[in-house]
Amino acid sequence: MTAANKNLNLVPFVSVDHMMKIVLEIGVEEVLSGIAAYVEDDFRRWDLFDKTPRIASHSAEGVIELMPTSDGKVYGFKYVNGHPKNMKEGLQTVTAFGVLSDVDTGYPVLLSEMTILTALRTAATSAVAAKYLAPEGADCMAIIGNGAQAEFQALAFKAICGISRLRLFDIDPAATRKCMTNLEGRGFEITPCTSAEAAVESAQIITTVTADKQYATILTDNLVGSGVHINAIGGDCPGKTELHRDILLRSDIFVEYTPQTRIEGDIQQLPADHPVTEMWQVIRGDVAGRRDGKQITLFDSVGFAIEDFSALRYIRDQLERTGLYQNLDMIADPDEPRDLFGMIMRAAKAG
Amino acid sequence: MTAANKNLNLVPFVSVDHMMKIVLEIGVEEVLSGIAAYVEDDFRRWDLFDKTPRIASHSAEGVIELMPTSDGKVYGFKYVNGHPKNMKEGLQTVTAFGVLSDVDTGYPVLLSEMTILTALRTAATSAVAAKYLAPEGADCMAIIGNGAQAEFQALAFKAICGISRLRLFDIDPAATRKCMTNLEGRGFEITPCTSAEAAVESAQIITTVTADKQYATILTDNLVGSGVHINAIGGDCPGKTELHRDILLRSDIFVEYTPQTRIEGDIQQLPADHPVTEMWQVIRGDVAGRRDGKQITLFDSVGFAIEDFSALRYIRDQLERTGLYQNLDMIADPDEPRDLFGMIMRAAKAG
Repeated sequence: MTAANKNLNLVPFVSVDHMMKIVLEIGVEEVLSGIAAYVEDDFRRWDLFDKTPRIASHSAEGVIELMPTSDGKVYGFKYVNGHPKNMKEGLQTVTAFGVLSDVDTGYPVLLSEMTILTALRTAATSAVAAKYLAPEGADCMAIIGNGAQAEFQALAFKAICGISRLRLFDIDPAATRKCMTNLEGRGFEITPCTSAEAAVESAQIITTVTADKQYATILTDNLVGSGVHINAIGGDCPGKTELHRDILLRSDIFVEYTPQTRIEGDIQQLPADHPVTEMWQVIRGDVAGRRDGKQITLFDSVGFAIEDFSALRYIRDQLERTGLYQNLDMIADPDEPRDLFGMIMRAAKAG
Repeated sequence: MTAANKNLNLVPFVSVDHMMKIVLEIGVEEVLSGIAAYVEDDFRRWDLFDKTPRIASHSAEGVIELMPTSDGKVYGFKYVNGHPKNMKEGLQTVTAFGVLSDVDTGYPVLLSEMTILTALRTAATSAVAAKYLAPEGADCMAIIGNGAQAEFQALAFKAICGISRLRLFDIDPAATRKCMTNLEGRGFEITPCTSAEAAVESAQIITTVTADKQYATILTDNLVGSGVHINAIGGDCPGKTELHRDILLRSDIFVEYTPQTRIEGDIQQLPADHPVTEMWQVIRGDVAGRRDGKQITLFDSVGFAIEDFSALRYIRDQLERTGLYQNLDMIADPDEPRDLFGMIMRAAKAG
């Protein structure tokens, strides 16, 4: 931001409608690849970031969280709620929006919807991890749980990891049908499956992305053969896990940010000193990712503030190119900073 | 919020322009009285609130803070920055915006500018405190520091405490002139003064609201006579104080939220166990405010999240009456919650 930027009182806002248009205009796979590149960049400069834990306000029905972070030049935060009972009332379980600001001035520079953007960054982050962890030549992925995140996962893995075959399973066949319909004509060979066991057959990557808030066992130990990469998305808050503990014990486990994943991830089932590797170390080349063809790798993903930051940065960088935003008059900007009152009174005369 | 409220994806947004129009349409003094009533209400139900400390992200040039709170039914937070060097670049030192959400669903229900609104709530809170602490029959207030907050303080004390005479002093006479011009025709008898000593003469209330970030001594002990009420606004962050320590030692000190004021208020000059009283206890009638005509009372104000919450609640309740807001398409709302991807694709067909 420079002094030449005159309208600092105006904050660009990306609405849900604009976000959909950005995705459509640029193309889903290109957006996913773009966000993945920003996530990878930000993971590489991991040590620059403030890694504040999220600030949660809990109630009987759900939680509202603020997730701030900063790289020292740009500050960002996401507002996100989680209300499992919303679904029954025809509402979203999770809604989100986010803000980026200039650290040097404290002025907000972007306000964006983040329900769609969170779906995109979650899939992009999964694919970045798989790029380093999946077995060489992987082309087939099982997706267990065919809800809101499934198509984003499929397309991110196609764009970033070269996945062309999908094996889908959901306890609700309607979800699988929805997913197949949505992915039609996008270059996948798709096999609907009637069990998790059938879905994982011949898949080199297994994505678990189910929604039930409970200690569930989506995958049992006998289903996981040597050499696969498990992309575990759905075990993402206290009390919500997807994998049998024995799978964890056979896997090399990779996480985003250890203190958060110990509480929220599938590894909440393990002792607090169980060894894990943070993905940024692998991406930077400090620590090996996949070592051989027999190793089982597990990305225990819970979603971290830096990924939201990366996604917001990506969207900010598309504004000029797409023009898909509106300016909000959000920051009071009197000509004379000490004369806030006079500014209001002059508005009366102007109006 | 009821199920009849259909457009939950739309969040009302109060821009700077709308906030100015709300103030002008309702009237400054009525808005200040309205916010004061909401602040008083919320202080009365103090124990219901989550009192999370603010979450600060510090940099060399300033700070960006998130201040969340909740009463169990409504959740609110304020984003606020503080960048003292901004002024030199023609930017605001402090900008702010805020959000209210429904705790039951987690959906945001209001986004508002808060630079103007913070100025209003700060003045309203000062006047609420003075209502309980100022000497009976007080009609004259000294204002030391005639910057952005001065007019708001004057009008809040007129509307809520019956102040009709003002004695103004600022080290910059231009600030005093600005303040006098802005308050012309609003029913005050105003005396510009050339020193703090002259300003406090005959004033029953002394408001200190200066801007310099340093340990300053705006008021020395000899200037403060018995029986006055001191409304100390400008000592509001670590390293920034206004009053000589001896004044604090002669005063009965009232604060918003003790743990925060110990760090940010003028009492940062005192030992951590120096007795103070929280204003909510006085407002509820649990503890006496002013006991007699000789006591020096001091409201050591730093600004607390609950006051922002009260101000946002007040503004939300003016939306229907004034129509002064716009709806933002902020929350993704697919017909089928599991079909976020399909919603985007259908937008392509619709568009």
